[in-house]
Amino acid sequence: MGQTAAVPTTVLQAMQETNRLFSEQVVRNKQIAKLDSVYTEDGAILPPDSPIIRGRENIKRFWSKVILEAGLSDAPLTTVEAELVGDAAYEVGTAQLTFQGQSGTSQISVKYVVIWKQEANGSWKWHRDIWNPTVS
Amino acid sequence: MGQTAAVPTTVLQAMQETNRLFSEQVVRNKQIAKLDSVYTEDGAILPPDSPIIRGRENIKRFWSKVILEAGLSDAPLTTVEAELVGDAAYEVGTAQLTFQGQSGTSQISVKYVVIWKQEANGSWKWHRDIWNPTVS
Repeated sequence: MGQTAAVPTTVLQAMQETNRLFSEQVVRNKQIAKLDSVYTEDGAILPPDSPIIRGRENIKRFWSKVILEAGLSDAPLTTVEAELVGDAAYEVGTAQLTFQGQSGTSQISVKYVVIWKQEANGSWKWHRDIWNPTVS
Repeated sequence: MGQTAAVPTTVLQAMQETNRLFSEQVVRNKQIAKLDSVYTEDGAILPPDSPIIRGRENIKRFWSKVILEAGLSDAPLTTVEAELVGDAAYEVGTAQLTFQGQSGTSQISVKYVVIWKQEANGSWKWHRDIWNPTVS
């Protein structure tokens, strides 16, 4: 089935660090600029009900709207599986999105696939990122 | 950014053959059994508004419902990008889904990410498959 492999602990830790950065710094603390450390410069996201969004600056604009305007306030990520493929990786995971708006708090369960790449400095970032709701 | 590479023409042709198999044999001709040649045996799909579905037999049950009961009648796939990663690959693409039901014909534009793996016999199959609507 190909030379894929379980993700070594060191890589998994680096991935979890990036995931925490997104959940804690970007979403919870609303530090949109930290997305520089989450997505590759030529990253792309495929949000539900949207065309493909390419490039980190456009991705920052997207999350800026979702976090600062739509009120996304919490997004803890749970890795369901991760597999090293060559010197990249893919991850399947789930997230619980909490939105705090004027009409109260709402939650959405989503699942996602992320293609990860490692940058020259060793950090692991999201290169392709797609998600959808788990229950409508 | 790592040793990823454009997909060689031979691999791309093999991928397009698998995609055609899905669109033409499985969806258009309703030959559910042909999914054996589309998904890896331990493949998984992440449909919108559904939990993760694991294993080819469960995947066949899912598509059987969508094609034979919900009336999916056409699903041409367009590869937007494909990249070889180690001896696997990922693909970003779009599809136009046509449903023919008792109340007429409806269409949905979706986009997807597929993680591809090559089997021992050389054929390329979908290993992870997630999609969502492009416009709500």
